[in-house]
Amino acid sequence: MTIIITAFERSPDGGKGLARDTRVRWALEEVGLAYAVRPVSFQAMKEAAHLALHPFCQIPTYEEGDFALFETGAIVFHIAERHAGLWPFESEARARAIMWMFAALSTVEPPILELANATLLERDKPWSQERLPLVQDRVRDRLRQLAARLGEASWLDGAFSAGDLLMVSVLLRLRSSGLLDEFANLAAYVARGEARPAYQRAFTAQLAINAPKPSAG
Amino acid sequence: MTIIITAFERSPDGGKGLARDTRVRWALEEVGLAYAVRPVSFQAMKEAAHLALHPFCQIPTYEEGDFALFETGAIVFHIAERHAGLWPFESEARARAIMWMFAALSTVEPPILELANATLLERDKPWSQERLPLVQDRVRDRLRQLAARLGEASWLDGAFSAGDLLMVSVLLRLRSSGLLDEFANLAAYVARGEARPAYQRAFTAQLAINAPKPSAG
Repeated sequence: MTIIITAFERSPDGGKGLARDTRVRWALEEVGLAYAVRPVSFQAMKEAAHLALHPFCQIPTYEEGDFALFETGAIVFHIAERHAGLWPFESEARARAIMWMFAALSTVEPPILELANATLLERDKPWSQERLPLVQDRVRDRLRQLAARLGEASWLDGAFSAGDLLMVSVLLRLRSSGLLDEFANLAAYVARGEARPAYQRAFTAQLAINAPKPSAG
Repeated sequence: MTIIITAFERSPDGGKGLARDTRVRWALEEVGLAYAVRPVSFQAMKEAAHLALHPFCQIPTYEEGDFALFETGAIVFHIAERHAGLWPFESEARARAIMWMFAALSTVEPPILELANATLLERDKPWSQERLPLVQDRVRDRLRQLAARLGEASWLDGAFSAGDLLMVSVLLRLRSSGLLDEFANLAAYVARGEARPAYQRAFTAQLAINAPKPSAG
């Protein structure tokens, strides 16, 4: 059964790989599953057909025949559960991989989303410059804690897992802010994730859709 | 093996049930598991013994002998996987329950956390009043989408699941803002969650620790 995911018809990041379809592509590449992509325009994301798949008007979604999922964490979970390569077989280590998936998406990412809101949605507000350091410090607090836990380890809990896949993906969103470079072990951790062949294939595939095209003229 | 969870020695909400240990208590009550609670002071949360359990300095944690987890979503997942009562047996319906767990914690809760930051941490800032409607509107956008998906259904995907447990818990944090009451079906959904005997037991148990004590004088 063909796996179909949705992605932005044209990602707002112009191919930096920060749209969430890259996370799902990466998971599919790690386990060696082929997939097809259905690009969705911003207009189509608000229409009934897409809302039936994703009530929060976002990408990615995942379809396999009549079975459909939204929510990146749940899609990565579904792939990891059915195919070897995204977490250990041993049940306690697997529970910790799932713990890091939730930690990435519900503890580390929220302050990063708040920073994105501050720099994108509130850039022109009169309070923008004065407020930014507060929001950056909330991100730094989380990064400091994560850096302390990771220490000199390569991955968060022994071998690479879906928890690392999501944590690296979340941290990648910080690169342009400069905050990631304040924590050398986290910057190296993200670079280790990006160096994985599966990530490279996922990145290249999204870039093929999103890279700025040379003008025809 | 005794299950031990951590909770605030004294919750900042004074017993409203909004601290995240209530979510774990509720899950344990739904499946009928006994548990013990180890209260942790704000000082102890920053010390090495607690950081070894929870790198992000938070509660709750979950211990069963030598096995330990942090991150509420992962703890609820761990309970649901081992004990009947928190999601359906059928695998596609179970995947959708997990989807709603992630949706609650990584799509619906982040704007609610941003609203909490705006009203608690930035209350005295000069921009506070002017910015608040923007943040409230981000929450409303999510609530509108969630309300449209829920419609007249009792729960998000057929029977009550861990997805509903987390979604109701996340929405409960909005009660004092008044935003929840703008969406009648969501307010009724939250009330249905609160009416469950397992929620009532969890709420009562946390209240016993957190309720303001009558003064001895």
